[in-house]
Amino acid sequence: MSLVIKQNSKTLYKKYVQHLQKIADVKYAAAVLQWDQETYMPPKGANYRAQQVATLSEIAHHLYTQTSFKKILLQLKEATDLNDEQQKNITLSWYDYTQQEKLTPLFVRKLSTTVSKSFQAWMEARGKNKFSLFQKDLAALVKLKQQEADLLGYEQHAYNALINQYEKDCTVTELDRVFDNLQIPLKKILAQIAAQPQVDDSLLQQPYAANTQWQWGLDIMKQMGFDFEAGRQDKSEHPFTTNFSSQDIRLTTRIDENDFSNMTWSCIHELGHGLYEQGLPAAAYGLPLGEYASLSIHESQSRLWENNIGRSHNVWKYLLPIAQKYFPQQLGNTNTTAFYKAINKVAPSLIRTEADELTYHFHVIIRYQLEKALMGGQLPVKEIPAYWNQLYQQYLGITVPNDKQGCLQDVHWSHGSFGYFPTYSLGSLYAAQFFAAAKKQVPGLEEGITKGQFQPLLAWLRNNVHIHGRRYNSQQLCEQISGEPLNIDYFMNYAHDKYKSIYEF
Amino acid sequence: MSLVIKQNSKTLYKKYVQHLQKIADVKYAAAVLQWDQETYMPPKGANYRAQQVATLSEIAHHLYTQTSFKKILLQLKEATDLNDEQQKNITLSWYDYTQQEKLTPLFVRKLSTTVSKSFQAWMEARGKNKFSLFQKDLAALVKLKQQEADLLGYEQHAYNALINQYEKDCTVTELDRVFDNLQIPLKKILAQIAAQPQVDDSLLQQPYAANTQWQWGLDIMKQMGFDFEAGRQDKSEHPFTTNFSSQDIRLTTRIDENDFSNMTWSCIHELGHGLYEQGLPAAAYGLPLGEYASLSIHESQSRLWENNIGRSHNVWKYLLPIAQKYFPQQLGNTNTTAFYKAINKVAPSLIRTEADELTYHFHVIIRYQLEKALMGGQLPVKEIPAYWNQLYQQYLGITVPNDKQGCLQDVHWSHGSFGYFPTYSLGSLYAAQFFAAAKKQVPGLEEGITKGQFQPLLAWLRNNVHIHGRRYNSQQLCEQISGEPLNIDYFMNYAHDKYKSIYEF
Repeated sequence: MSLVIKQNSKTLYKKYVQHLQKIADVKYAAAVLQWDQETYMPPKGANYRAQQVATLSEIAHHLYTQTSFKKILLQLKEATDLNDEQQKNITLSWYDYTQQEKLTPLFVRKLSTTVSKSFQAWMEARGKNKFSLFQKDLAALVKLKQQEADLLGYEQHAYNALINQYEKDCTVTELDRVFDNLQIPLKKILAQIAAQPQVDDSLLQQPYAANTQWQWGLDIMKQMGFDFEAGRQDKSEHPFTTNFSSQDIRLTTRIDENDFSNMTWSCIHELGHGLYEQGLPAAAYGLPLGEYASLSIHESQSRLWENNIGRSHNVWKYLLPIAQKYFPQQLGNTNTTAFYKAINKVAPSLIRTEADELTYHFHVIIRYQLEKALMGGQLPVKEIPAYWNQLYQQYLGITVPNDKQGCLQDVHWSHGSFGYFPTYSLGSLYAAQFFAAAKKQVPGLEEGITKGQFQPLLAWLRNNVHIHGRRYNSQQLCEQISGEPLNIDYFMNYAHDKYKSIYEF
Repeated sequence: MSLVIKQNSKTLYKKYVQHLQKIADVKYAAAVLQWDQETYMPPKGANYRAQQVATLSEIAHHLYTQTSFKKILLQLKEATDLNDEQQKNITLSWYDYTQQEKLTPLFVRKLSTTVSKSFQAWMEARGKNKFSLFQKDLAALVKLKQQEADLLGYEQHAYNALINQYEKDCTVTELDRVFDNLQIPLKKILAQIAAQPQVDDSLLQQPYAANTQWQWGLDIMKQMGFDFEAGRQDKSEHPFTTNFSSQDIRLTTRIDENDFSNMTWSCIHELGHGLYEQGLPAAAYGLPLGEYASLSIHESQSRLWENNIGRSHNVWKYLLPIAQKYFPQQLGNTNTTAFYKAINKVAPSLIRTEADELTYHFHVIIRYQLEKALMGGQLPVKEIPAYWNQLYQQYLGITVPNDKQGCLQDVHWSHGSFGYFPTYSLGSLYAAQFFAAAKKQVPGLEEGITKGQFQPLLAWLRNNVHIHGRRYNSQQLCEQISGEPLNIDYFMNYAHDKYKSIYEF
């Protein structure tokens, strides 16, 4: 009898895997279409692309919520002969199912087409520097996201339901606490920095030829371990990482011909995302354990490479001589220390993606405040620009000259991604905590970085973060790696050590 | 009562359109994945791409063969209040349905994955110049295609079922007749040419910088009317055209840095396909009337632009001065007549895509003979190389030195496309017949070409070919345009006039 049940579970589990992989095929197909939309698609291609992506979203949702699949999940939930890995997959898939079934096919389709429409509207509005062109579509999207929150259910705040999609079990309460705790020491260190003479970063703003930047970007990525047999880089207006399996990772970047920083750290940032995706267990294609843990963990990988490595003194002992070969005229006369200071200049600025590591968090906090108010119904969409500008004055003390450099700068809202921004700060905090653990656990890690030895760090990340896929949530992973929950002291200590040496306070 | 029926048909027709558009979304998504596979996908991406495309194919087939959709079609077939266009769509969709329902979902999936596997095997075999590496997968594919023929049903010859997928109602009997009739005058004119001194085409084989060729290719395409807002060109190992709606056409090309011809006429050829796709009725997205008529008609468009225009004396009166600006060193010293002769050199050769307009047909006839024997079961797959080489000796009098330049040169069989090649010859024949009609109907057409006025020809093709979509089959369209069925005399007369002047016989 027990043999029969065993066989039954085995067969059922196989069916479960096949069905999830089929859903993955459809979702990844949609990802290919979206990647193409942002990299190569000609303008008129947009006329049907939205519909094509919506159809795939609808099909994926339909496949997930099929009664026959629910039955398989229910049976496997009760099965006693699954191994630990199989059980974990089933638990996570059951959770996913319960989330998916709360949304109707019609809603999924409507959300997808509204997102595509909003993205086009945002592109136009941004190009023409006119928020009003985006307002109507954004308002429709905000309303849909509020509906989504209602459908998904939440406690206390509608925004919680949306945050939960990116960062499971994270809430407004928790985020308020983190951001409140973070602001105090951040403001203190910023005041210390402001009291010192500003560093000179003018060498970064010179003409840097696009082609050479492109080659330089690929060079760093190769050195840091990106597998170009399992991925590639292309250009897009807004850098992003996507993937169509753990063996096909697409990064994008953008080039500013009068700035060295923009592409360099965008490359390293997306590289961090890409390395994570390449390190997810390939055999678990389509299964929860083949997926990333959470957005904050994803961001911890990009921020760790971008900042803890990419803006470190150590790495530039190795990279600067290489950069000087690419750009002898622009960088030939600098030295590691001066260059290190230049790339770590701290100053309030308008654009989040170009912000230094400290003021960056205020950019996130501002978006978090706006999203909370939008989803809570306190902020009408048409008042976004005014409130945005007010918050920039309040938190960063700067005046926003126009919408393009203000509330139209980020793509996220046009994608319907509300609740996404906070994971950027969480990611930076996790990055500092993880990097501290790595330094303890990998002998000679920092010394190696000065010689371009990135493999030990990558191997550590592979074994401690990547390989687990979605087995642990952010908090569990953090405790497992560092022995304690998220602790902002790691970030603040890192910041103190770093900026004390740079600004000499 | 009649009002009720009318409303009912209207609602049903709307459902029919929605369902077909959904299927189109899925099919075009698969096309995006295939386009990416041949242009940008990194090598390891192949590991899951085959499965992703197979899943989409299976879903598209599933959607087409749903009982609920069959019911809609059956009701609309009987409806008396559809307009002419709607009736035509329903008739064609019903035919498509009857074809689709003959294939099981399992078969569709198996065919798709076998094709992807075969394509990878062919790529490797071609790279390593070794047919044996392709043999096993090709044999599996041939067997599947024979099964497909059995499932679809046929009279007289299994190959008929496959030809019918590309060229409705075309048969082995018909093709035997056309090729038999074509061979006699072709051999005669080739003998006349062989008796004359050979033309010198050495100026075409010089170093032509890749970047300049790329720009030059885009320039011609722009001049000839390709809408780059609704399409683009990329590079691939094997030039092809695909589309994701009539407003997103993707062409690809390849560049040989030591040859002017390879990319130039490949660009113009694919341009012809692209202009056809851009001219299909945009509003009929997903519907039969928004689709191309047949493969031979598709090929008539590419061959017309490539040969009747692209290799004409007239067009180079306009294009040569432009080409000379791109390549002053290589082309600065030639003149239109010498250049015209060089690009029309007739000589037996190994590679179909590089063949002249006359010997080209023998390349097709050879493949036709092979396919007929393969599908009829007279030719075992392992004997393809030997038979291929024997036929090249027999028809073209040349010795095939290796598989790469022999039976591994074309991608088609690895795609499972048996019955496709004959449409290449038919396309050239239709092109000559259509071009003769256009010259009669458009005053000053040829004179305009000498001045780079391509718009009158494109407008004629739009109105006489493109706009009809799939309304007429090849034969009907041919009769409508030229007043008679396919007649090889048009091609032979065109060939006579052309080569008599070039070879002076």
